[in-house]
Amino acid sequence: MKPSEELEAIAKQQGCCVEDLKFAQHMDSIDPIRPLRQDFHYPKMKDVKNTDLSIVNGEEDCVYFCGNSLGLCPKKTKEYMDIEIDKWSKIGVQGHTNGDLAWAHCDERIDKDMAKIVGGKEGEVAVMNGLTVNLHLLLISFYQPTKERHKILCEGKAFPSDHYAFESQIKLHGYDPATSLRLLEPREGEFTLRTEDIVKTIEEEGESIAVICLSGLQYYTGQYFDIPTITQAGQKQGCYVGWDLAHAAGNLPLYLHDWGVDFACWCSYKYLCGSAGTLAGFFLHDKYRNNNFPKLLGWWGHNMDTRFQMDNVMDLSPGAYGYRISNPPGFLCVPIKASLEVYNKTSMTELRTKSKLLTGYLEMLIKKQYGREETNNASTTGVYIDIFTPSDPEQRGAQLSLSFSICIQTVFKELEKRGVVCDKRYPRVIRVSPVPIYCSFQDVHRFMKYLYDSIQAAKDST
Amino acid sequence: MKPSEELEAIAKQQGCCVEDLKFAQHMDSIDPIRPLRQDFHYPKMKDVKNTDLSIVNGEEDCVYFCGNSLGLCPKKTKEYMDIEIDKWSKIGVQGHTNGDLAWAHCDERIDKDMAKIVGGKEGEVAVMNGLTVNLHLLLISFYQPTKERHKILCEGKAFPSDHYAFESQIKLHGYDPATSLRLLEPREGEFTLRTEDIVKTIEEEGESIAVICLSGLQYYTGQYFDIPTITQAGQKQGCYVGWDLAHAAGNLPLYLHDWGVDFACWCSYKYLCGSAGTLAGFFLHDKYRNNNFPKLLGWWGHNMDTRFQMDNVMDLSPGAYGYRISNPPGFLCVPIKASLEVYNKTSMTELRTKSKLLTGYLEMLIKKQYGREETNNASTTGVYIDIFTPSDPEQRGAQLSLSFSICIQTVFKELEKRGVVCDKRYPRVIRVSPVPIYCSFQDVHRFMKYLYDSIQAAKDST
Ligand SMILES: Cc1ncc(COP(=O)(O)O)c(C=O)c1O
Ligand SMILES: Cc1ncc(COP(=O)(O)O)c(C=O)c1O
Repeated sequence: MKPSEELEAIAKQQGCCVEDLKFAQHMDSIDPIRPLRQDFHYPKMKDVKNTDLSIVNGEEDCVYFCGNSLGLCPKKTKEYMDIEIDKWSKIGVQGHTNGDLAWAHCDERIDKDMAKIVGGKEGEVAVMNGLTVNLHLLLISFYQPTKERHKILCEGKAFPSDHYAFESQIKLHGYDPATSLRLLEPREGEFTLRTEDIVKTIEEEGESIAVICLSGLQYYTGQYFDIPTITQAGQKQGCYVGWDLAHAAGNLPLYLHDWGVDFACWCSYKYLCGSAGTLAGFFLHDKYRNNNFPKLLGWWGHNMDTRFQMDNVMDLSPGAYGYRISNPPGFLCVPIKASLEVYNKTSMTELRTKSKLLTGYLEMLIKKQYGREETNNASTTGVYIDIFTPSDPEQRGAQLSLSFSICIQTVFKELEKRGVVCDKRYPRVIRVSPVPIYCSFQDVHRFMKYLYDSIQAAKDST
Repeated sequence: MKPSEELEAIAKQQGCCVEDLKFAQHMDSIDPIRPLRQDFHYPKMKDVKNTDLSIVNGEEDCVYFCGNSLGLCPKKTKEYMDIEIDKWSKIGVQGHTNGDLAWAHCDERIDKDMAKIVGGKEGEVAVMNGLTVNLHLLLISFYQPTKERHKILCEGKAFPSDHYAFESQIKLHGYDPATSLRLLEPREGEFTLRTEDIVKTIEEEGESIAVICLSGLQYYTGQYFDIPTITQAGQKQGCYVGWDLAHAAGNLPLYLHDWGVDFACWCSYKYLCGSAGTLAGFFLHDKYRNNNFPKLLGWWGHNMDTRFQMDNVMDLSPGAYGYRISNPPGFLCVPIKASLEVYNKTSMTELRTKSKLLTGYLEMLIKKQYGREETNNASTTGVYIDIFTPSDPEQRGAQLSLSFSICIQTVFKELEKRGVVCDKRYPRVIRVSPVPIYCSFQDVHRFMKYLYDSIQAAKDST
């Protein structure tokens, strides 16, 4: 059953329409993970910037639909941070080996929970550096171009940082991005890439492709790629296949080990609520546990047992740990630990179940009110919203990318006045992500009201 | 005047001996930066691990001589951290552009003060990643071996992480560390490297050396190298010369720009008190502001003005900023900011003036009591301490590396019982660093007492 059908069925059962507040309230009342919102600081209208407190109630929660950019603060963050600051204050260097987050081991205290999020087996996941830094470390190993096989295959609209990483890696090896960076573009008139087209390109050009690296979930379109199919297609052609999971980790269930993905990296500040710019994830499949790839090494990749003999003879940790370079920052493990504890109260499967309904709910309300193909709600006539995120729930996560028939500048400002926190890309796109771990059906309902008011105000002001 | 002479002169003037508590108290009373200790949490006897509260007073400060490993916690850390956690809690993603440490700019809010510490000009210093990660990023640019010029010259006892970084970079380019990693060794029977010998090696083998990379201050011996002389000697031979300043930054004044150093990196958790595993420093000399070196790029190297157009056309920031890869972690800028504010209350020159006296004081007391060449204090007969850190104050920083004539295992345990926090390397070496920004002459005096008691106890127990 499609989410929209499921939602309509529930509404019918409840004797109301999906547009009714009552319906949203009912959906929240049957949401088994509703209490998890309480584990985060959900911002208030009065605190977020640019709200107009003459039109909204300052004490009310804002509508936080920006978890695709930065997740909310887990409440335990402060308590755990105080413990670390206090430890540092009281025992200085001895904090390296004392306390739950003993700094010499603090990354190892969180990477098992992190592995669960992405479906990594023991030894496959490390938590370190930033996302793009990890991408580079992986490419140093996996991208070893030869005259015959020199290409990196990626999305035409890859996230800029990845694009620059690919270009610079290609140049590092003396190749030219113009000929070695192969960009996948959607068909004319389409916004997202079709799996069949990706696979076709891989089949046609696979022999010249060294590495395939797409984002698991596209930051701009919200498209969720078919990771196992693409991975298999690439590997069949002898390519290494890796994934940037910035927008996928913590958003939907992943099975990196089972899918046989060669490598992956992701950040922990979006769906994973690990704080701005915090440590990133790193996945190396078990099949490369003991590999002979080139690597950039540091002492933190040295086996712990012998690391402090400091004899300058490298005794490399197997798997992902061998890629660790510098000693880990205790203060960044704090919020990640706080957040993963909340994730441990549920599961990616349970989150996904809610997410499909929550985003499906948002989609159906937008379509009903602003869709070109629906009987438009009279009062909004004249303004259309196209959703260029795939309508198939299997091909997307929490995020919807909305394309407005009017310039979004004023709409966005009006949304801000009403405490809607989301994200814009001029001239027409607003990205909204009702994140299942802390967002509710009533948030979606409120969003629709504020969106309506914002569009009205935008129309009035022009 | 040598520090020991200066100290003796002051003692004489005060009508006491340098061994007297009165003398240490006097030195503290005339120390212009004595109040800075109050800006840090100086651990108490009762809090540090393994103290025996039946022999020391728990309320007393410990003797923290381990700032060469991890600096103390600046008191402002908690206040500033609370601000960031509170900001995240209240406004979520908007924290990227709001507040003093707006996360999208937080590294730029601290790098100017960081540049002062190392003598970097505007645009030469960035704060990012970990030390060894930065070393790799710099080597990717500076180490481009050719058949003729393929060597990296470093210390035989380089810090392990650097050693592994060098080895892996050499292998990355298809060379063999056995022939391309050139290790400098001290003369037989000596512990430290002579500048003349380093220069001679450079002159003899310079043509085959691509990069010279030593630590500014040797972690094991405490030797401070003659950075300008070695840099010049290397550059004269056409080598790039870079420095790992882990133990030098915040320890003594550095003039990286004026010395014409090609590149440098350092961590901020030792003398700079920036918290365990925190962001590291990165220096690229202005002469390479716009260079064509290979680089590992990311979106954070893109000019800020145009970064968020996200058109995947790289518009690289000049200088060090162009080497930034991932977006910076706000929570790590917090303690660095807190610490650099304390550094801003003094200067590296002022710290160095105190440091020379403080470490000179420690050295003279150790020599008087445990030196082979002095008339030994009768009660300690039988135990000698050799200091293998250079006795010339210009060739060292705060740290002294002490080599005991007895195995240090028990001595170290006894020191711990007395609240002395320092660092051991079996079988014979204990490193102690009276850090001038928060240590006092009375700390040195107390250390000497605890050392004496510990040696006695160690002797009794054998
Ligand atoms: C001289 C030197 N270099 C490098 C390192 C390693 O630093 P990191 O783990 O921050 O990369 C250290 C750490 O103590 C060091 O003392
Ligand atoms: C898909 C994707 N890749 C990479 C990045 C860049 O990450 P970082 O700055 O953490 O390296 C982002 C950040 O938003 C992203 O969305």
